[in-house]
Amino acid sequence: MAATVVCASGNVEVVCESVRVTPAAKAPVCVLGTGLIGGSLLRAAVAAGYDAWGYNRSAAGAHAARADGFDVTEDLPATLTRAAAADALIVIAVPMPAVEHMVSSIAAFASHCALTDVVSVKAPVAAAVRAQGLSARYVGGHPMAGTSESGWAATDSDLFRGAVWAVGVDEGTHVDPWTRVVRLAIDCGSVVVPVLADEHDRAVARISHLPHVLAEALAAAGAAGGDLALGLAAGSFRDGTRVAATAPALVRAICEPNSAAILEVLEETLTVLGAARDSLRAQNSLADLVEAGHDARARYETTQRWEVTDVRPGDHNWLRNLRDAGLRGGVITRLD
Amino acid sequence: MAATVVCASGNVEVVCESVRVTPAAKAPVCVLGTGLIGGSLLRAAVAAGYDAWGYNRSAAGAHAARADGFDVTEDLPATLTRAAAADALIVIAVPMPAVEHMVSSIAAFASHCALTDVVSVKAPVAAAVRAQGLSARYVGGHPMAGTSESGWAATDSDLFRGAVWAVGVDEGTHVDPWTRVVRLAIDCGSVVVPVLADEHDRAVARISHLPHVLAEALAAAGAAGGDLALGLAAGSFRDGTRVAATAPALVRAICEPNSAAILEVLEETLTVLGAARDSLRAQNSLADLVEAGHDARARYETTQRWEVTDVRPGDHNWLRNLRDAGLRGGVITRLD
Repeated sequence: MAATVVCASGNVEVVCESVRVTPAAKAPVCVLGTGLIGGSLLRAAVAAGYDAWGYNRSAAGAHAARADGFDVTEDLPATLTRAAAADALIVIAVPMPAVEHMVSSIAAFASHCALTDVVSVKAPVAAAVRAQGLSARYVGGHPMAGTSESGWAATDSDLFRGAVWAVGVDEGTHVDPWTRVVRLAIDCGSVVVPVLADEHDRAVARISHLPHVLAEALAAAGAAGGDLALGLAAGSFRDGTRVAATAPALVRAICEPNSAAILEVLEETLTVLGAARDSLRAQNSLADLVEAGHDARARYETTQRWEVTDVRPGDHNWLRNLRDAGLRGGVITRLD
Repeated sequence: MAATVVCASGNVEVVCESVRVTPAAKAPVCVLGTGLIGGSLLRAAVAAGYDAWGYNRSAAGAHAARADGFDVTEDLPATLTRAAAADALIVIAVPMPAVEHMVSSIAAFASHCALTDVVSVKAPVAAAVRAQGLSARYVGGHPMAGTSESGWAATDSDLFRGAVWAVGVDEGTHVDPWTRVVRLAIDCGSVVVPVLADEHDRAVARISHLPHVLAEALAAAGAAGGDLALGLAAGSFRDGTRVAATAPALVRAICEPNSAAILEVLEETLTVLGAARDSLRAQNSLADLVEAGHDARARYETTQRWEVTDVRPGDHNWLRNLRDAGLRGGVITRLD
């Protein structure tokens, strides 16, 4: 099957160097880590007709998955050996602190498998993969979906339906694993945003990690007001602190590996809030902050995704063209 | 009808000085300003069986209300003259910048009417009322409900159902207007939190105004990441910026009159975020922030409201006892 994802930038001279790839539509999928994201992916892949199985470190989590009829064990070598034999796409779905161990196990037992991940930062995962010499088979991924819950009990085969799934297009990405990952994301109901690892990490610092940081600070400010303040809290506080309910270890595992990008946007936000404080104190005005925020939210609400339809994986400059499309809001919704 | 709201602080020696009050169950209600909150209150009062009418400054808003069968005019003197004749409870439901004009009109046309408001700050409204010599008939109110929409088109008779409605218990509050306001709030489906004006304003700075400030800053940080960041944004950004969609003039009208309390909690939050930045930079750790935020959100989720059942309006120390109950999470759910 030749993937015929294409880019809307019509002025690009496309040199046809595409290769016929055989990503084996719905090739097997092996999920490492069956928590909220990995477990939901296992459910979604099976629901979409994939042969899929998984590994989970905790026996309780693996048992819960098996009790629901899924093929999940606590035996990592056996799981990976099976993946190697079946030429499965391996999905790393553990928190960042556990990624290095997973990658070295993959290098030991299934080094030829196509490899992706669903971790919330991309550059540190890519570095771990590179350190084990697995880059040629690796394509980073990040489904932008989740809840404040965690563990198998929270898994949902529809978690990715209508979501955005970031998929790496860094230099050196190969067509076969890339096509497999995109197909899986689409089959799980998502649309795909092509993105470089570094650019992904800076973007999610703004729209995923900063929301966590501000939610934690808002929750703390509310609770410092005691039962009266918490008792008066309504929708704005409830929604603004929702993600503060996420398990602290998970929030830290999500945010701390992206500290450089978070520091940049946090510094920017401290400057914005400091200026608002100064303006409120000196002129009793929040005008600048409120107008900027309202315009920004309006831009978010009206941002239109558009379908990338004229980039063919493997074509000359396909990775750069997809990256450019992603930066401009382009998404991939199908592989022809 | 004697109101028999009572306080759970069982060690209070209650001296029975209560007076038989005649707050005329479901006495008429006159709403000044039929935007989201005032218009919803008009709908809710009529639905609860009150004789209720209103005034709206804009002819378009008044016309929209009339088109839906409600008795709303653009004639403020006529509206207030009718309120005076009917001994109605007047509800000020305009943004803070318009309150002073309303209060002086009430002083001119309906100075003997019981008077409340639904404005988001309490001390500035109380000051405006005091300046016109109307304090004896005034009881501050603030239903903790709203959406990011505004105007008559957004009104909803169920807006206050299940909500918390702050009602003033400041020194000098009289039983009759207080009972009328509490009855109206309960009949609209809310529970009542008794609170001092200053304590209310400090509490809402934490759980209503700071959420606005942080939502604006978060929205701006996201939009600064361009189409890529906004395209990757999912639930945490959507929920964290929801109230940034509120009309800027309305946000400013809500927040700027409460600048002293906002400055206090904003400074506190800048300190918390600055410490998180320092810890992330020096130790690559968000532990303190994340743990404090998680604990705070858990406290919010598990905060139990309890029913105030042993304070009788007019009893010795009834205002102080109600205030103390409110500070500890007590709510009034009925008037016997």
